Amino acid sequence: MPPKPHTPTAPNALTVNETLSLLATVLACSTVLARALLQGDDGAPLIASLAMSGIAFSATYAMIRWLGPTFIGAGIKGVDMSKAHNKKEIPECMGAVCAVVYIFCMICFIPFPFYKDIVSATSGGGNRDVVIMHEEYVQEGRFLHRFPHNKLASYLSAIMSLQSIALLGIGDDLFDIRWRHKFFIPAFAAIPLLVVYFVDFGVTSIVVPIPLQPYLGVELLNLGGLYYFYMAAIAIFSPNSINILAGINGIEVSQSVVIAALLAFNDVLYLLTPYPHPATDSHLFSLYFLLPFIGVASALLKHNWYPAKVFVGDTFCYFAGMVFVVVSILGHFTKTLALLLIPQIFNFVYSAPQIFGAIPCPRHRLPRFNHRTGLLEPSVTTWDEDKQPKPPIAAVLRLLAKMRLIRLREDEETKNITETSNLTLLNLWLVWRGPLKEDRLATEITTLQVVAGLFGLFVRHKLALLVFRQDNWSL
Amino acid sequence: MPPKPHTPTAPNALTVNETLSLLATVLACSTVLARALLQGDDGAPLIASLAMSGIAFSATYAMIRWLGPTFIGAGIKGVDMSKAHNKKEIPECMGAVCAVVYIFCMICFIPFPFYKDIVSATSGGGNRDVVIMHEEYVQEGRFLHRFPHNKLASYLSAIMSLQSIALLGIGDDLFDIRWRHKFFIPAFAAIPLLVVYFVDFGVTSIVVPIPLQPYLGVELLNLGGLYYFYMAAIAIFSPNSINILAGINGIEVSQSVVIAALLAFNDVLYLLTPYPHPATDSHLFSLYFLLPFIGVASALLKHNWYPAKVFVGDTFCYFAGMVFVVVSILGHFTKTLALLLIPQIFNFVYSAPQIFGAIPCPRHRLPRFNHRTGLLEPSVTTWDEDKQPKPPIAAVLRLLAKMRLIRLREDEETKNITETSNLTLLNLWLVWRGPLKEDRLATEITTLQVVAGLFGLFVRHKLALLVFRQDNWSL
Repeated sequence: MPPKPHTPTAPNALTVNETLSLLATVLACSTVLARALLQGDDGAPLIASLAMSGIAFSATYAMIRWLGPTFIGAGIKGVDMSKAHNKKEIPECMGAVCAVVYIFCMICFIPFPFYKDIVSATSGGGNRDVVIMHEEYVQEGRFLHRFPHNKLASYLSAIMSLQSIALLGIGDDLFDIRWRHKFFIPAFAAIPLLVVYFVDFGVTSIVVPIPLQPYLGVELLNLGGLYYFYMAAIAIFSPNSINILAGINGIEVSQSVVIAALLAFNDVLYLLTPYPHPATDSHLFSLYFLLPFIGVASALLKHNWYPAKVFVGDTFCYFAGMVFVVVSILGHFTKTLALLLIPQIFNFVYSAPQIFGAIPCPRHRLPRFNHRTGLLEPSVTTWDEDKQPKPPIAAVLRLLAKMRLIRLREDEETKNITETSNLTLLNLWLVWRGPLKEDRLATEITTLQVVAGLFGLFVRHKLALLVFRQDNWSL
Repeated sequence: MPPKPHTPTAPNALTVNETLSLLATVLACSTVLARALLQGDDGAPLIASLAMSGIAFSATYAMIRWLGPTFIGAGIKGVDMSKAHNKKEIPECMGAVCAVVYIFCMICFIPFPFYKDIVSATSGGGNRDVVIMHEEYVQEGRFLHRFPHNKLASYLSAIMSLQSIALLGIGDDLFDIRWRHKFFIPAFAAIPLLVVYFVDFGVTSIVVPIPLQPYLGVELLNLGGLYYFYMAAIAIFSPNSINILAGINGIEVSQSVVIAALLAFNDVLYLLTPYPHPATDSHLFSLYFLLPFIGVASALLKHNWYPAKVFVGDTFCYFAGMVFVVVSILGHFTKTLALLLIPQIFNFVYSAPQIFGAIPCPRHRLPRFNHRTGLLEPSVTTWDEDKQPKPPIAAVLRLLAKMRLIRLREDEETKNITETSNLTLLNLWLVWRGPLKEDRLATEITTLQVVAGLFGLFVRHKLALLVFRQDNWSL
């Protein structure tokens, strides 16, 4: 082993108030957890999941604070460009702390939903090689919230995908991989999920919307191998779309918390339907993954919200996106996820001309900080006189400007385009709303996410009946 | 997101010869793999595992070369202290590359041993919710090398533990965690393995040696919760023991390759017994984990052997140790593993006085490089006149010196101890053999590992019959 310098780790102490609040939370949650462990009544795993989420929140909160100086010491740090005094370095890649706490928590949670069912479902006497499992038992013998053993492989594969994305995300944050390479990181991380889906489950059929049924002649369409491409596409899109809706304090985390909360809300709707319902287990499964995520992400949000004391890193964005991917793929509600990602989808489509090179893309497209006013303004791409956009692109840009979808400035004499605002949702919002303070912008975009998400859920449960035979959430 | 500088990555090119050899290996292995996939006859998964190991070797070999500059650019680098020109920095923590390739390979391998069995074992028609599994089927219906579905959870938990140790090992390499904290890293990483063992398998009985049976009155002793402590102890010891038998080029990797090869040799012995044999599946399972490990570790060894072009990092040592832990725990041959770790156990026991502070422990105990001769000599702890060891310790040191188990120097007049060699196997070997060149020392210690390991296997299969009723490898 080569020599290594010892990094002095002066801990960033928690205040007395914080320490007491966190300790109280941990104590209360541990009590609930112990009760769930000992009594083991029907709702126990869900209650245990809630308690674990509280512990995960506290652990993440404290560790982010304590590990800050260690991260800075190891050179994992960055400068906030949107502040007046922009010299101070703060820790970067704190999403890694979230990810580690989350994964640890999910692993320790395994016995709660899985243990009891297995014991009672085996042939007894410690001999668990041959699993005796009657169909009636699976259908009626359980109420909330125990899973049959065959869900364990899915659960483990989901954690593996999340571990993979954490590992690759940290690699990305350390080595700053090129954009066109890192785009595919989530696809690699999704492999455990898809491989186990393949050997374990293998359902590759989708319900055909009613208007299309006469043409295809079937209600269920088996997509076969294509279905894996579809899942891979979701797995690539979700993490990357969160990663590109970024650039101001708190926005990556707040949008993730909102999406997770809305998914959890949707899951709870299914728990209220009479059991047995075919989708209940999937949504319970989803809740077990979402609650601890909300826990760790909220702790990160406290530190990353304006003015940010830590950065989250690509690790967090990928990780959050992948949590949504695993719950929606294993729970078979990828279309619902898509409805909750409307702002991300808009941002991606809107950004596409710059991402795919039709319009020059500067290295950073985050809103510009105006040092005089202290407000954020849309950042711009400038067009030199001798490097004007090609006529068709110029025409599109002028059209977008007319529709107020970009801000465009022209030279008054030559009518040349001098600058256009960069194509991100954040810049567009600033075009519409005028210069804003950073936290105000983050709050407004987060509110937009909430409103768009609630609308998405409304579409899912009400309007979907226009094109599908029935809502699978049938009260 | 904060700004990040773009790291220029000038790739460390492979030579034409290397490129051709690696390409040929990948091509040959891919052909074998495709054949195994399409034909799917009985030995297919084992052949696929061999082919994948070849691909894993090639991928690791190439990636270590290509990623070198990237690692150095990210500050993950170190200086070799045992070289005459000791200014050159080389990449550190290359074990992370091994780990990532290995995990990726193990995930892609899942369908080979698991797919066919599941398809034929379910109720058909794509309905795999209810698994029909007859005892006769499990006992006779399969030959080598398909696993029943309930092994999948064990397989996934093993990969999760390996992913965890990679993640925590990288954290250790980046942040240089204190010794007394990092000692417990493997315990955390072992949690997925132990939790799934708990919910999935739960066998906690051990066979009592014949001489002890009259006293205990049983043949099988159920250790209950204690068994988990036993497994956790193995999980902590194995990775750490490899990590402390370190300090010269190549030694961490070569010992790991030797142990893996001997474990694989032992596994092959079981494949040659008539099927069905109760231990066959466990040893096949073990082979699937060991072969790709030998692949990636050999590629690393090529770069880490004297004169090292890369360092392996704690990540590698932990990772290698954890591979041995997962195969031996899931295969129920932890005692065999202990027999193969004899040099590591000796090194640990011998080091204990320094590790636990009875004798001062300098930060580095690796052998001292003599710049004049170019040879390695034992490194020493020096004792000042006013800071002599306490009388009992001095007595022990003198006794050890008399038994030639340390080198001790005294002041000729005062008879005070002036220096004692540091308590590591490498230093002890140099005390016995005199100064050696670095690669010579590494070769000799590796040979020692081979001889001790073969002796261990001999003990396992021959002498064990003196204390156990039967060898479970019965020809």
